[in-house]
Amino acid sequence: MNFKYDERIDGALPPVDRDALIEALERLCPGMQVLHEPEHVRPFECDGLSAYRTVPLCVVLPETVEQVAAVLKLAAARGIPVVARGAGTGLSGGALPLEKGILLVMSKFKRIVAIDPVAGIARVEPGVRNLAISQAAAPHGLYYAPDPSSQIACSIGGNVAENAGGVHCLKYGLTVHNILNVDILTIDGERMTLGAESLDSPGFDLLALFTGSEGMLGVVVEVTVKLLPKPQCAKMLMASFNDVETAGKAVAGIIGAGIIPGGLEMMDNLAIRAAEDFIHAGYPVDAEAILLCELDGAEIDVDEDIAHVSQLLRAAGAANVTVAKDEAERLRLWAGRKNAFPAVGRLSPDYYCIDGSIPRRELARVLRGIAALSSEYGLRVANVFHAGDGNMHPLILFDANQPGELARTEALAGKILELCVAVGGSITGEHGVGREKINQMCVQFTSDEIEFFHAVKAAFDPAQLLNPGKNIPTLHRCAEFGAMHVHHGQLPFPELERF
Amino acid sequence: MNFKYDERIDGALPPVDRDALIEALERLCPGMQVLHEPEHVRPFECDGLSAYRTVPLCVVLPETVEQVAAVLKLAAARGIPVVARGAGTGLSGGALPLEKGILLVMSKFKRIVAIDPVAGIARVEPGVRNLAISQAAAPHGLYYAPDPSSQIACSIGGNVAENAGGVHCLKYGLTVHNILNVDILTIDGERMTLGAESLDSPGFDLLALFTGSEGMLGVVVEVTVKLLPKPQCAKMLMASFNDVETAGKAVAGIIGAGIIPGGLEMMDNLAIRAAEDFIHAGYPVDAEAILLCELDGAEIDVDEDIAHVSQLLRAAGAANVTVAKDEAERLRLWAGRKNAFPAVGRLSPDYYCIDGSIPRRELARVLRGIAALSSEYGLRVANVFHAGDGNMHPLILFDANQPGELARTEALAGKILELCVAVGGSITGEHGVGREKINQMCVQFTSDEIEFFHAVKAAFDPAQLLNPGKNIPTLHRCAEFGAMHVHHGQLPFPELERF
Repeated sequence: MNFKYDERIDGALPPVDRDALIEALERLCPGMQVLHEPEHVRPFECDGLSAYRTVPLCVVLPETVEQVAAVLKLAAARGIPVVARGAGTGLSGGALPLEKGILLVMSKFKRIVAIDPVAGIARVEPGVRNLAISQAAAPHGLYYAPDPSSQIACSIGGNVAENAGGVHCLKYGLTVHNILNVDILTIDGERMTLGAESLDSPGFDLLALFTGSEGMLGVVVEVTVKLLPKPQCAKMLMASFNDVETAGKAVAGIIGAGIIPGGLEMMDNLAIRAAEDFIHAGYPVDAEAILLCELDGAEIDVDEDIAHVSQLLRAAGAANVTVAKDEAERLRLWAGRKNAFPAVGRLSPDYYCIDGSIPRRELARVLRGIAALSSEYGLRVANVFHAGDGNMHPLILFDANQPGELARTEALAGKILELCVAVGGSITGEHGVGREKINQMCVQFTSDEIEFFHAVKAAFDPAQLLNPGKNIPTLHRCAEFGAMHVHHGQLPFPELERF
Repeated sequence: MNFKYDERIDGALPPVDRDALIEALERLCPGMQVLHEPEHVRPFECDGLSAYRTVPLCVVLPETVEQVAAVLKLAAARGIPVVARGAGTGLSGGALPLEKGILLVMSKFKRIVAIDPVAGIARVEPGVRNLAISQAAAPHGLYYAPDPSSQIACSIGGNVAENAGGVHCLKYGLTVHNILNVDILTIDGERMTLGAESLDSPGFDLLALFTGSEGMLGVVVEVTVKLLPKPQCAKMLMASFNDVETAGKAVAGIIGAGIIPGGLEMMDNLAIRAAEDFIHAGYPVDAEAILLCELDGAEIDVDEDIAHVSQLLRAAGAANVTVAKDEAERLRLWAGRKNAFPAVGRLSPDYYCIDGSIPRRELARVLRGIAALSSEYGLRVANVFHAGDGNMHPLILFDANQPGELARTEALAGKILELCVAVGGSITGEHGVGREKINQMCVQFTSDEIEFFHAVKAAFDPAQLLNPGKNIPTLHRCAEFGAMHVHHGQLPFPELERF
């Protein structure tokens, strides 16, 4: 497979006196904290989006906040860019290194500083894994709600940087809704607390601004998260449909009835068959689409909701509706969904996962549009996604070894994201922009809006040293991409009429 | 009563050619849209915080977004400050006019543009009253959750500017959690959409940054709010206590048990007696404190929660626990709470309402501290507040006509806010900073942090024309106030040991 390298970003960075930098870093972070030999830095060349790879100049693994501050001060003094990362599981190349930059790896910060079960909060270091927080809170009957698919590996600092979501964010919100404050270091190595443990913080809401800013405004050194009481019980419905559009409409029906399920996921036939072959979850392989709907809360409530949702699904045209008869079946149904990406991966040498979000009412139309674009580009697309909150994850199946197929895949992916924008949605749901979708930002936003992003960036990092080249495109790049004629969601998308 | 005028802000503004400005504005906004005669502009001299008054140079009441844009462009071109306001019900002087500035009143924008009951959203103009949204949504079984006490009068544009809360924000969140996007005009008159109807908006979270920015970053011209299904039922518990600290601990017990009530309010004896005298709500006048706890949701659930909370309250030491026997009694109990401020106002010529928030675990200590400070300053303090989310509203009773009493009141209020910061809380819960608490911002934040606020402000409004002198203090002001030695919540507060 061909890996991508962005000459416009890496090529444009100023030259670095490599040896002097490494020597200085080793003085600040002695021992095995600075890696620079090719075989040591190579494993850090990409994050979860492996299509983009760049070998960093060096990797620093500091052990104390003072060391992180010292590294940042050094970088600021010498004008060297810094890319911070946690576990590196992101899917948009947000933590992709720079060949003339420091990769600052926060994985040694794995201490759970304090849990206060009465207040329902935990203070943790940024390298603590998402799932580890819930495990530590479990003895108190509490858990941390956001659950990205990578939750076993991804760390909370990266969750903050990407404003991570997950299956349950429909009901429980994204990272920004589940944190109280974040301690950061600025590029000058100054520590600041954003947010407050109390209700609302005065002044501008810098915590929300920071959350999802993809490492461009500062480096997370501590996070205070909210813990929620574990729901008394969870039950799962599976509904099958003879066409995807009816399934899309059923989703709107459930939410429209005022029910907010713990999770509401949709898979189309290609995804169903792939998952069933791989996991044997018990999915109906002839169905054109299934919906998986989990309801959680007090048992008496959940039973009432299960009855209500079953009725809504039947009324919406479901061919069949079943309730998982026990916990084992519920977990099996989830296992199929959670392994759908690797399952689809078995059908094809490569697959490309897209992450766009749309208003729920547009689900049926966007699914029609994806099907039409799929035949037009001659590439199969499987759909597995968080239907409840309109977060689409179309997977394009392709073979990178076939000449031109990667380029065609990228063109199709871009087209699908533009379709999301055209119906009033956005180019990302939960994976972030990173390096991957920097061009699509030009579709999503006007040049005025992009200038505001740059002004905000400059307020925190005027020398552009923190994760440059990600998240916010330059206006020059947008002009090259040729998309600056659009206005916020008002993209001319002539095909829209057809879908 | 003596009104306050801030020489450092109004006096420092450059002189304005008044006649030329009014003539130009009248060309842009013909008819009765520009007010400048003393008797016409006088009614706009303050917002809900009547201690501060300034007569604006002129008042503009535009009718179209194009007119608002034209006024802003004119102001930007001539360097004239603009204070935007909606209904002017704010309690921190955020919408206080400037004597050399334009007061831009958005009250003519009262159209509900669209309601989409399936998506659960409403698009409204900024002058629409908070309660009018819920009234318009009611036929669909939906409502808009944030409910500040002023909800009958306050408008959604102001709610966005102040990130308004209310009795129910413990369960349903603040304004920022209940809006999807906001259309704003920048100081240059450019229209921008912040946020998205879909799950998450890429780039920095400018919607959250804007919400609560108190008119310093732009002018709201349209808001898309979330609508929620009306809870099936609501029931109310009242618990009385022989001391306020036990009541404070009971609050922590309820939340710690994983129950999030629709509302959880506390009143102390002074407030109970005042409200009972005024409203005859049926409060126990001998109790040192009462808690009012509303539970809402599906009936079966609410009944279960009522039983559970009753048990928790008794276990926590409540002297008596009763359940409102019907809707009439529930509404009567709420009426006492909602009229507690005017009720306390009947006890004294003047009262000063404080708005601070604290971590819930500190409730008992802060109540002790307020009592100690109250005797020290020789001023009575009534406590009526949103206990569930730690949002305190101490009311200081005083007589402005007694020499020195206003100054003593302000000193006590400042001390109480500093106590909130010292225990890890903040100087505002839901009223905002405005003009009132600009000095306390110097206590809450370090100079580094305040510099960041200024940099963010400059990204939107480099010439400082939007609502100058509110929300974010200058470093010079902080130096004068003498508070720059503190560090974020680590204020030296020697009295703390005593409480």
